[in-house]
Parts: sequence; C-alpha cells; structure tokens
Amino acid sequence: MENYDVVIVGAGPVGLMLSSHLQRWGYKIKHIDNRPEPTPTGRADGIQPRSLDLLRNMGLKRKIMAHDPAKVYEVAFWDPDAKGIHRTGTWASCPKFIDARYPFTTLLHQGLIERVFIEDIEKHGGKVQRPWTITGFENDGKDETYPVKVSIAHINGVAEENMRTKYLFSGEGARSFVRNKLGIQIRHKDPIAYVWGVMDGVVRTDFPDIKMKCTIHSDAGSIMVIPREANMVRLYIQIASSTDPDWNPRKTATENQVQDAAKRILKPYSIEWDRVEWYSVYPIGQGLADRYTLDERVFMGGDCCHTHSPKAGQGMNTAFLDAANLAWKIHHVESGWAQRSILKTYESERRHIADNLLNFDAKYAKLFSSRQPSAGEVGAANTHDAHPDESDFVKTFKESCEFTSGYGIAYKPNVLNWSPGDDADQNIQRHPATSPLFLPYQRGTHLRTGRILTPATVTRVVDANIVHLEQEIPLNGSFRIYIFGGLPHLTQRAIANLATALAKPTSFLRAYARADEPAVSPHERFNPHSRFATFATVLAAPRAGIEIRKLLPPLLARYKDLVFADDVPDMRVPEAKAPAHAKMGLSQERGGVVVVRPDGYVGCVVRLVEGSGTADALNEYFAAFVTKRVGAERAAL
Amino acid sequence: MENYDVVIVGAGPVGLMLSSHLQRWGYKIKHIDNRPEPTPTGRADGIQPRSLDLLRNMGLKRKIMAHDPAKVYEVAFWDPDAKGIHRTGTWASCPKFIDARYPFTTLLHQGLIERVFIEDIEKHGGKVQRPWTITGFENDGKDETYPVKVSIAHINGVAEENMRTKYLFSGEGARSFVRNKLGIQIRHKDPIAYVWGVMDGVVRTDFPDIKMKCTIHSDAGSIMVIPREANMVRLYIQIASSTDPDWNPRKTATENQVQDAAKRILKPYSIEWDRVEWYSVYPIGQGLADRYTLDERVFMGGDCCHTHSPKAGQGMNTAFLDAANLAWKIHHVESGWAQRSILKTYESERRHIADNLLNFDAKYAKLFSSRQPSAGEVGAANTHDAHPDESDFVKTFKESCEFTSGYGIAYKPNVLNWSPGDDADQNIQRHPATSPLFLPYQRGTHLRTGRILTPATVTRVVDANIVHLEQEIPLNGSFRIYIFGGLPHLTQRAIANLATALAKPTSFLRAYARADEPAVSPHERFNPHSRFATFATVLAAPRAGIEIRKLLPPLLARYKDLVFADDVPDMRVPEAKAPAHAKMGLSQERGGVVVVRPDGYVGCVVRLVEGSGTADALNEYFAAFVTKRVGAERAAL
Repeated sequence: MENYDVVIVGAGPVGLMLSSHLQRWGYKIKHIDNRPEPTPTGRADGIQPRSLDLLRNMGLKRKIMAHDPAKVYEVAFWDPDAKGIHRTGTWASCPKFIDARYPFTTLLHQGLIERVFIEDIEKHGGKVQRPWTITGFENDGKDETYPVKVSIAHINGVAEENMRTKYLFSGEGARSFVRNKLGIQIRHKDPIAYVWGVMDGVVRTDFPDIKMKCTIHSDAGSIMVIPREANMVRLYIQIASSTDPDWNPRKTATENQVQDAAKRILKPYSIEWDRVEWYSVYPIGQGLADRYTLDERVFMGGDCCHTHSPKAGQGMNTAFLDAANLAWKIHHVESGWAQRSILKTYESERRHIADNLLNFDAKYAKLFSSRQPSAGEVGAANTHDAHPDESDFVKTFKESCEFTSGYGIAYKPNVLNWSPGDDADQNIQRHPATSPLFLPYQRGTHLRTGRILTPATVTRVVDANIVHLEQEIPLNGSFRIYIFGGLPHLTQRAIANLATALAKPTSFLRAYARADEPAVSPHERFNPHSRFATFATVLAAPRAGIEIRKLLPPLLARYKDLVFADDVPDMRVPEAKAPAHAKMGLSQERGGVVVVRPDGYVGCVVRLVEGSGTADALNEYFAAFVTKRVGAERAAL
Repeated sequence: MENYDVVIVGAGPVGLMLSSHLQRWGYKIKHIDNRPEPTPTGRADGIQPRSLDLLRNMGLKRKIMAHDPAKVYEVAFWDPDAKGIHRTGTWASCPKFIDARYPFTTLLHQGLIERVFIEDIEKHGGKVQRPWTITGFENDGKDETYPVKVSIAHINGVAEENMRTKYLFSGEGARSFVRNKLGIQIRHKDPIAYVWGVMDGVVRTDFPDIKMKCTIHSDAGSIMVIPREANMVRLYIQIASSTDPDWNPRKTATENQVQDAAKRILKPYSIEWDRVEWYSVYPIGQGLADRYTLDERVFMGGDCCHTHSPKAGQGMNTAFLDAANLAWKIHHVESGWAQRSILKTYESERRHIADNLLNFDAKYAKLFSSRQPSAGEVGAANTHDAHPDESDFVKTFKESCEFTSGYGIAYKPNVLNWSPGDDADQNIQRHPATSPLFLPYQRGTHLRTGRILTPATVTRVVDANIVHLEQEIPLNGSFRIYIFGGLPHLTQRAIANLATALAKPTSFLRAYARADEPAVSPHERFNPHSRFATFATVLAAPRAGIEIRKLLPPLLARYKDLVFADDVPDMRVPEAKAPAHAKMGLSQERGGVVVVRPDGYVGCVVRLVEGSGTADALNEYFAAFVTKRVGAERAAL
C-alpha cells in the first residue's frame, strides 16, 4: 500500500489549485478525477481581479492571457420601456476606489483554465488520474504519519487502488461522496431557489452592449449577458423561481425556447445564433456546509462546501482561494514549522467568506429582481468621492464590487492575523501578541490584517526594472517580510539592529534555518537562509542612490534581488515622495515592517525601531503558532 | 518547375520577419537556411522598444516574454580610480522624453527569438527548409509574372531544386551570395575596425551592476556588460582596434584570457564563472551596401546590407524593420493596389536609416573611447526638461537614445510620407499632393510623417476595455486610417460627410473594395469593405456617452470594434480633457484624420472638415502611388 502526502479528489478549480500549490512545494500527491477529460465546454468562466493576481504569482497568468479571454471592465443595466428596452446606465466592474492591479474580470472557458493548471502540475512532476473515483476512506489513525486510508477505483470498476495519506481533500463539487460519508449537512441560507438556463454561442446582433456584461430586464423577462473569448457570448436566463406560483425545480426549457425568450427580451434589437457551443438548464439553491473538516485530516473546499447563483462569477474564484488558503497551512504544518492547530483556521477563515458570499448572493439576487438603479445612482458609483446623497443601493453596490473583485476578502483576527485586541466582537479568536510596536489599521498604517497587501509599483535596485512589489516574491510557500525602510539615513540603524536580532539563535529565522544553508547556491534569490520566510526591503530613495551593500546589513543584502527603490510616481498618491510607503500608510521618516502570509494576506504590521523591539515583535507574532520557542522572552523561559 | 511569390534565403531575424509578414497575408513562400537548426547559442539578443511594439502587433510579444527575458531600463557607467573602478552615473536606456510604450530593451538569446518566428510561420502554413543554400539566380524575365529563376541545393549537395519567383530576398548576413553575384559593393564608412570577444555565461560576482547594462573603463581595459535571461550575463571585450600600433584583424584571445581580462578590469570586485554558454571572437568593421536592390525583384536586407559594432544592440532591430518596411510594399504591389515604383522606397527609406546607424555607431564608439560623462551630465539626461547648460555629450546621448530605441527612426518625405513641400532639402522626393488640408508637423499636429504613430491609451467603446490605440489594428497589411473625431457635437457633420465621400465610386476605398464584400462575415473586424484600409474612430467623449450607431455613419459604425473614447487620463498630458487627441496635437474642437502606413509609420495628417475636402485630400494622398485613378478630380479627367 503506497503512502501519499495528500490525496485530492476532483480536478475542478479547487482541486487543481491545491494540487498546483503542493506540487511546486515538493509534496507527493495522488490526484484523481472521475471525468475522462477536462471540462469540454461551458461551466465557470470568470476570473476575478484578485484571482488573476494569484495566478500571476504562480506564473500562470500569461498562459491564461494567451487564449485572448474577454475582459469585463464595465457592467451595463437595461430596463423596459415603451419600445422594448433601454440602457439606464453602466458602472465599473472593479471601480477606481478599489486599488486593483487588474481592474477587470477575465472570461475564459473553464476547460482552458483547467488545462493551464494541468500543464503546471505536470511541469512539477504530478498528474491527474482519470477517470477514477473515490470509493471509501477512513481516518483510522493506524499509522501516525499517514492516518487516513483511502480507496479509489476506475469508474468502469475494473481497477482499484488502496493507499494511506496524511490528508484527503475533496474538491468533488456539490455532490460530494466525502461530505456525505462524513455526514456533514448543507444548510440552505436563502430559501429561494432558481432554475437557470445558460447558453454559450456566437451570435449576430445589433444590441450595442453584446460585448459588455449586462443585466437586462424587459416586460418579456430578464437575461444576463456575459462576453466570452472567440467572439462568444454567454446568456443566463432565469427559467423559474421558487417564488413562482407554479414552482417546479425540475422545470426545463429547450434551446429554442431560450433563444426565443432572448429574442423577446432584447427587442427592439435583433439576435440570431451562428452556433451554440453549450447549453444547460440547472436548478440552483444556496447552500453552505456546516463544516469544512471534522479532524483537520479530511478537508473539503469549493462547490463541495458552498453553492450559490452564477450571477456574480464567484464560484471558481472562491474555490481558488479556498485551496490557496489551505495549501500553505498544510505546507507549514508538514514542514514542522507551524502547530497543527493552524489547520483549524482553514474552516474559520474560508467558511466566513462563503457565508459573506451567500449573504451577498441573496441580496444581489433580490436587488436585481426588485428594482433597477436609476441613471443618477449609476453615475455616482463610478466616482471616487463619497456622495452624501448616494443611495443604499449604490453603497451596497460598492461593498459588493470590492467583495466580488476579491479585494474585499477580509479574514477576521485570529492566530495568523494580528489584532489590537480592542474590538468589541467577542466571537473572534484574538492573536496573543502584545508588543506595543504592532500597528493597528488607521493607527500608523493603512494596511489591514487579514486583507491582501496593497499593490505598489517600485524600482528593483539591481537592474532598475519597474516592477510590481506585490508580485516580486513568487508563490514559494514562505512568509513574506517587507521592510519598508523609509529614508535610509533615518532608519539605517534600526534596520541594522533588526538584522542583528534576526541573526540570533532565538529568532524565527534561525529556528527554521535551512539544514543545507551552507550549500545554498549564490543564485538562490528567495530562500537563502530559510524556507520559512523571504525578506524584501523597500527604501524611500531614488534607485541610483541605493548601494545595497553599504545601506543594508549582510543578512538583508543577501536578498539583493528583493531590494526596491520607492521612486515610481503613482496617480493614487500624486503628492507622495515615497508612493509605496504612502499607499501602505507608512511614513518615510519611520518606515515599518509588514508580514504577509504565504497566501498574500497581511499578518501584522510592526514599527521599525532601533534596538531589538522590531525583531521581538516579529518573534512574538510567529511564536503564537510555530512549533519552536522563538523570541527573547520565550527563550528565557 | 514550381512558382513562388517570394523566395527567402536565410532564417535570421530579417528573413524570418519577412516570411512571418508575408505568410500571414497568404503568399506562397520558399524559405531556406543553410544552418541545420536555429541559432543554438549566442549572437544578437537585444529587442529595442520599437521592435517590441512590432512584435506585439504581430501577436508575438507574449511568446517572447514567456521566456522571462532580462529587461534593461538603465545603463551604468564605470570609470577608473585609485582603487580600481567606480560608477560615475547611470541613465535611462529609453528616457522619459521618449514616449515609448515599453521603455526598456528586452534581452533574449537569438535562437529563442528565431523559434518564436518559426512557430508563427508554421502556424500560417509555412516552413523553413534546412540546411539548404542558394546556388544561383537570375532575373531573366522569361516569365512576366515570375521573372526570377532561382536554384537551391542541400548543403551536402545531394539534392537540388529549381524554381521561378516574383521576388528573391537575401537575408544571408554579411557574407551574401546574392550580393556578391549582383556585384554590389560594401562601403566602409568608418575606417576603424575592431576585434571583439563576447562571452555569455553564469557568473558569481560582487559587482553591484551585474544585472544592468554597463560600460566599464579601467586602467586594465574596457568591457561592456549586458544582462541576459536565466541568470546569464554577456560580456563584450574589445580585443584589438585598427588604431592599435600592432593591429591585426585576425588577433584572437582564449576564453581564459578574456576571463582574466574581465577579472582585471572589474577590480576591486571579483568575478568567477559557473559556466560559459557561448564564447566567440570576431572582427567587426562598419559597412554599408551601395544598393539594396538593382531591379526591385531581387532584394537584400539585414546584415547583408549593413554591418557595425554590437555595442548598441541595433543589428537585429534594424533587420526587423528592414523586413517590415519591404513586406507591405510587396503586398500592396502584388495585390494590384500600389504602383510597382513604391518598391524603390524600400532602399531609399531603409538605406537612409542604415546610414544614420553607421554614423551613430562611429560616434558612439568614439564617445566611449575618448571621454566619460560626468555625474552631472548623466543626471541631466534623465530629466524631461531641456537644461540650458547641457553638454554636447548629453545632447548627443538624447538623440542616440531616441534612435536606438527605434522611436527616432524617421523616413524622409517621399511618395508615401507626405511633406509640406517647403523643405529646403532638395535631395528628397516630395509627395505631390497639394490639398490645403494636409497638416504639417507643428502646424496643426504633433505627428511627423515618416515616424511611427504616438502611443495613446483609450477606452474601446463596445466593451469598455482600456486599450493601446496603436495596437488595436493588428498587422493586417492595411493602411490604418484614424479619425480623431474630437467633440462629437462639433464634428458629427464632418464625419458624416467624410463617410459619404468615402462611399463614392471614385474613393480609394471603393476603388479597392473587396470582391467578396457581400459575403464578408459580420464578425470581420478589420476589413469589411477592403483589405486596402482599416478605419478607427476616436471621439473626445466619455465612453458611456458614445452610442456608435447614433454618432457615426454606417460606414464607420461597421468598424464598431475600432471606436474609442478618448477618456483615459495620461500623465504626459495631465491637463488634457482628450489625452489621445492632445498627444497627437489635434484639438478636440476640430479633430483630424491620420493615415498610418501598414508598417505603423505616419503617412499624412489631414484636417477634418465638413464637405468633401477631407476625403479629397485622402484620395489625393493615395492617388500618388495607387494603380487606379482615385479622387474627384482624377475621376473627372
């Protein structure tokens, strides 16, 4: 019987993302899918801005873009009138108030996205075994290292394999064998259910917004238009709602019926189909699994845990971020760095997001079915300034945009996301660190823990390349420690003191030093000392004035490819002399240290001071969840 | 004996670029190369900003970038001092005063670049036949359509082919069989010749600028450093100069000698080689062919016509632009659109550029060997404002930067590049059009004929995508006619009148209408009416306010994917309400029409007026070189 680190069931977005993470960090994976090949047509197709950041961090964005996907920058709203329909307004899909690197939704057929992942997995030595399905599993604990027994079989039943694994992950989708066997319930938050028809095809039309995302309400019904790659368009039509007097979840419609409905709804515009690529009718109900894991050995993610309407293009994106959240936690536990208990934060963090998503989804559905925004409201949503007279609708829209873009994803304070401890909410698990040097949101920094690092453009010192700071450390599984050094002449001593303290045997960096440190190649850019953390330094100085070896202590100078000049003007902070510092809310006089989790979310922000205080605070932050005693005080215990 | 449209000899940059152009326009090509495979290591590797624009227009930039090339944004200068060497300053490789979309040089091994082209050629149904060489050719005129007879043979002599062709192109490099057989001389402009050593490899060094482009002068000699992909670095060392007392063009040096020289030059810094990928020593002399063609049937381009030092990374880029210049002219002649005489402009335009290049190359070599810039001069080169006290050296540098980036390439007035006719230079071939509506440089427009269109960012109306205007029409072989419509309420009538005039049988558009026009797919975006021209319209209005069908006449509305809102703020013209108009120097009150040649260079700029004047001027511009009589007056003849 073979042993695996992780057995992954399902090669949809969540399973592929998890596999792609773990393969690149060297884990032994058994990955199965019960379909003979990747998604041939249809299904999910919207990649939100935050997901695109993640794909780029994995080196996969370029391969997605090679397919020339459609990009949605704006959404248009159409309402009924005497002649048929008219546009009431448009607004940005990812408005300017969101500081997104890629302020658009990328639309591409799920099968093409799956193939990009499969290629990446194969590049790292993995593969997806098809068409195989899971037939049984048990966390029997008979092997301490590999506690879970798993059985899988070819779908034709001719072959079977048994194995043991450290972890089992179900990315099986809404009908999950694993979830059923664990007896975990799906709760339906919103009692309203729908039947949707969805059709991908190439059309001929004089409807002017056919290449935009549109919501069209007419006296003949409602439709949602989403542009696709290769001249295609997707139409969503609501066929039935549980609020209908004759509600039947099995109600269906033929391709022709849906096309006829679309023709009636779009009048006075015409629409004809050159070809239909995919057509499907399916009932959608909102659901959320009670648990994502019972034992932190058998996990679930993606549609297996949460289902909702396809309207906001969130399914695949939520699946991606489920996997990204879990992957690094498994990695840190299995590397012997983090306590096993951090695995509990997978459910607490991700189920909270899914809960938000379902609340939003219910609200979104209601907003569209109850009333339409007026042109005035729509105009206001595109401006940066808060309008005192903006309606609840516009406010709700703004909040939703941030959430649906992925930039509004906010994990609550916990052992990974430091909190000031003065929050009134008693339901959150606080971070125990107490150093006075931690900077809470709005009190010394604009960064919020549990949110992703704000994007910033800087100049890389060694080669003068203009780069995106948030992308400079690839998805290497390490904590990312950004030292915003401010003005070097004011902070040089604080930085030197920090490096000295980091070099002490009691620091997290030395506690998790690489065993092969002396043999590490001088060309290693990200993990010369430890795979636990990578350091980047940003200085408020023009690039040409930065001599890395003179300004930085050797420990930080070793990360010379990650030293940046904060000298690139930014239209969002036009007055700032050090724009990246300004966007983080860190002054160029004092700087600050930002710890970013391996999945890109801010863990804590610490003041940069002379003496050992900064390093003490970092040690205290990590001490809350690492396996060894780190930090001066703990060492003295 | 088979007939071909074009026989291309040599699959280096110039041959591949020509083939890639012509294959996509449907020509029957025989393409041979005498090497058994693409360049395995070394050789040219610098893609300049303008070349990157061209590659993107061909859809090839993403494939180049997939190799993670090095990017050079700045150049560093090092001079001798008591301890060894010190940096005197740095400056931008493509400074801010150049309005470049990609202000950097892209460095990638020539073989990888060649493979990107070969893949593209194969995608369009072509191939490179290897290892075959040309053995004979003659423009014997025995066939009016295929006047040139060509013989080729496998390099081992076992096989031979004979064919007839419309055109023969030699991209054979400096030692050209074709050029020799034609008896065309290479003139050596600068009598100074050099022997260079060049070495690609992976090094370990504490030299801080190893990832920058550097020119290093020390008491132990001089060296040029160029970063490469995959952690590599290229070193150029001058081994001998014809000004040396013991000059010998066959002087050589071993790999170890060059490494030892580099070690001495870089002191006090250390350098060691992990591995050497490529090492070569070769003599370089400046040379320029007297002619690029004798009969406009047998052409030459690239190194075959011009050789010079590798210092400024111009060889491959000049080759690219040679091919791009010739390709569309052959296309327009063979399509029956242009008079055969436009083929003469290949030599007049490209030989002029090569002449400029050689002048620059000689000056550049001298500047580096005579004196070093001071830190003060270097600082001044990076600023946008002209400094009254800037030295001749900085002025020369600025001019050179623009030229070497490719943005300074300026073709003289001729039958393709309209001129006002008031130029004092008698050596130029003037454009005969005389309409008072043509706008000369600085008198109604900032655009200059014979230069590429200024880049501008706009919003595409149909899908609200933020796009790069200069890239929106792909390399389709058509003239690109940009209608800058200004404020729609002021220009709507002028635009309607223009469309009416364009629809007349006497217009260039109707003269070269597609024979299959009624059968053209409604999804055809670029050439619904004619393959001769593509129309794009830019309006000074917010995107949401542009109703294409209401604002534009049907002829222009047909190009709905090429209608843009000039509503994207631009840091170069922060005050402008219509930034793209402002960058072109066209007012939003009056607008203007810009004709861009199929290779991206501006042909003419015409005022946008009510009545038939604008169309008359366009017809007059084209009448100078097309095969049919176009325009109202000509039709009346």
